[in-house]
Amino acid sequence: MIITSRDNPNVKRIAKLTRRDQAKKEGLIYLEGTRLCEEALASGQTAEEVIVSEDRTGWAEEFTPGIEPLVLSKSVFQKISQTVNPQGVALVIKEPQENNEIPFKDDGKDIYVVLENTQDPGNLGTIIRTADAFGLTAVIVSPTTCDPYNDKVIRATMGSIWHIPIVRKTMDECFGFFDKAGIDTLAMHLNGSELGQSVLKLPCAYFIGNEGDGLTDETSSRCSRLVKIPMRGKAESLNAAVAASVIGYELSKLI
Amino acid sequence: MIITSRDNPNVKRIAKLTRRDQAKKEGLIYLEGTRLCEEALASGQTAEEVIVSEDRTGWAEEFTPGIEPLVLSKSVFQKISQTVNPQGVALVIKEPQENNEIPFKDDGKDIYVVLENTQDPGNLGTIIRTADAFGLTAVIVSPTTCDPYNDKVIRATMGSIWHIPIVRKTMDECFGFFDKAGIDTLAMHLNGSELGQSVLKLPCAYFIGNEGDGLTDETSSRCSRLVKIPMRGKAESLNAAVAASVIGYELSKLI
Repeated sequence: MIITSRDNPNVKRIAKLTRRDQAKKEGLIYLEGTRLCEEALASGQTAEEVIVSEDRTGWAEEFTPGIEPLVLSKSVFQKISQTVNPQGVALVIKEPQENNEIPFKDDGKDIYVVLENTQDPGNLGTIIRTADAFGLTAVIVSPTTCDPYNDKVIRATMGSIWHIPIVRKTMDECFGFFDKAGIDTLAMHLNGSELGQSVLKLPCAYFIGNEGDGLTDETSSRCSRLVKIPMRGKAESLNAAVAASVIGYELSKLI
Repeated sequence: MIITSRDNPNVKRIAKLTRRDQAKKEGLIYLEGTRLCEEALASGQTAEEVIVSEDRTGWAEEFTPGIEPLVLSKSVFQKISQTVNPQGVALVIKEPQENNEIPFKDDGKDIYVVLENTQDPGNLGTIIRTADAFGLTAVIVSPTTCDPYNDKVIRATMGSIWHIPIVRKTMDECFGFFDKAGIDTLAMHLNGSELGQSVLKLPCAYFIGNEGDGLTDETSSRCSRLVKIPMRGKAESLNAAVAASVIGYELSKLI
């Protein structure tokens, strides 16, 4: 049955979930577009709901067999869609990492990136992608860091959002865990000693601060050491995702 | 005199220049907002025109003394502004690097990043910022790479757009120059040998391709070697700005 009314209760429910704040409250994620949906499914995420426009039922048969899709008329799909030219394909899935524990391989090679108040979704997405690429154990985000399941973040991760654990923790919880587990803690800080003059060792967690303000003094002071990436030009600082990538790359050499 | 009409010929001329395609044709750049304008002036750019809203004449006196500003009523400034909440401060400056030659220090330590068809303004801006931070000689952009003087690019460079030469060249012109000057050429390529297993040497130019498609086969085949950044996780590739940063960082260690 093709739903042709925006007032259909199922449509109303999905339309509500397209608002990130609403989906988040329910522990759900609304994904739209073939790339995002197919990446999530390929990485083992399970669809709670499948929503397609009337001309994309073939997609649902191929990618979500066994799940009855909600089939909307093209105009109704357009109305709930977040994009100007919708691809007619959307999923509702559960947020992963519900237990929210910091994973620990305990093989002496754990690497964590901890983000304290990262605000730019593109930076967060790029850091998650890079953390996956370099084989980090997890990405840990502070409560004030932007929502990892924001659409822009998910897009920027290029699928890595489903490959690496993302854990939301306070700085207190982080230091509690790292101290107990004997994990070295590095603050990325413009007053730090230059990488190369600082001995890196694993297991290690490195802390990246807010794009404009850097790490808070409190967090910096709780880390074992402050380090910075050497700079030779006139730039005063590096982009947060670039800084996270360079230190992540150096640490991954030790795995 | 405060201009209160959108039909004033000076206002019409500036309004035209707020469109990047139009300013580009005239070899000019329209900058708006205190941060962007002050960064450009602090880096030695000369204002061709200064435009302020009636409440910001003090800014012009402080930052562009000796230049008669065009003073607009707040509502006229709002009309030509590119932003929702304009700061009442704008400049027109000339595009730098008009001679468009590839700079060459010839001290054996030149490093260039060459961008073939980079499309994302955020990536381009981040690469320019990083190239400045790591002391590269220049950023070279292909004719199909996005415009470096696009507002989003300028913002993402955090001032570095004025610190490092940006040169627009075809791949033919690049290889002509690099071959003649004896500069090593590295293609960043997913089929390349891993950094670390590949001996890096200066002077060096490294080539970064389009975000989706990577380098063209033609450009890759003209480079001396293909290299890639080692990846351990499930991510298939790195963000273009991250890849450019990691190789740039490794090369900058040799300066």
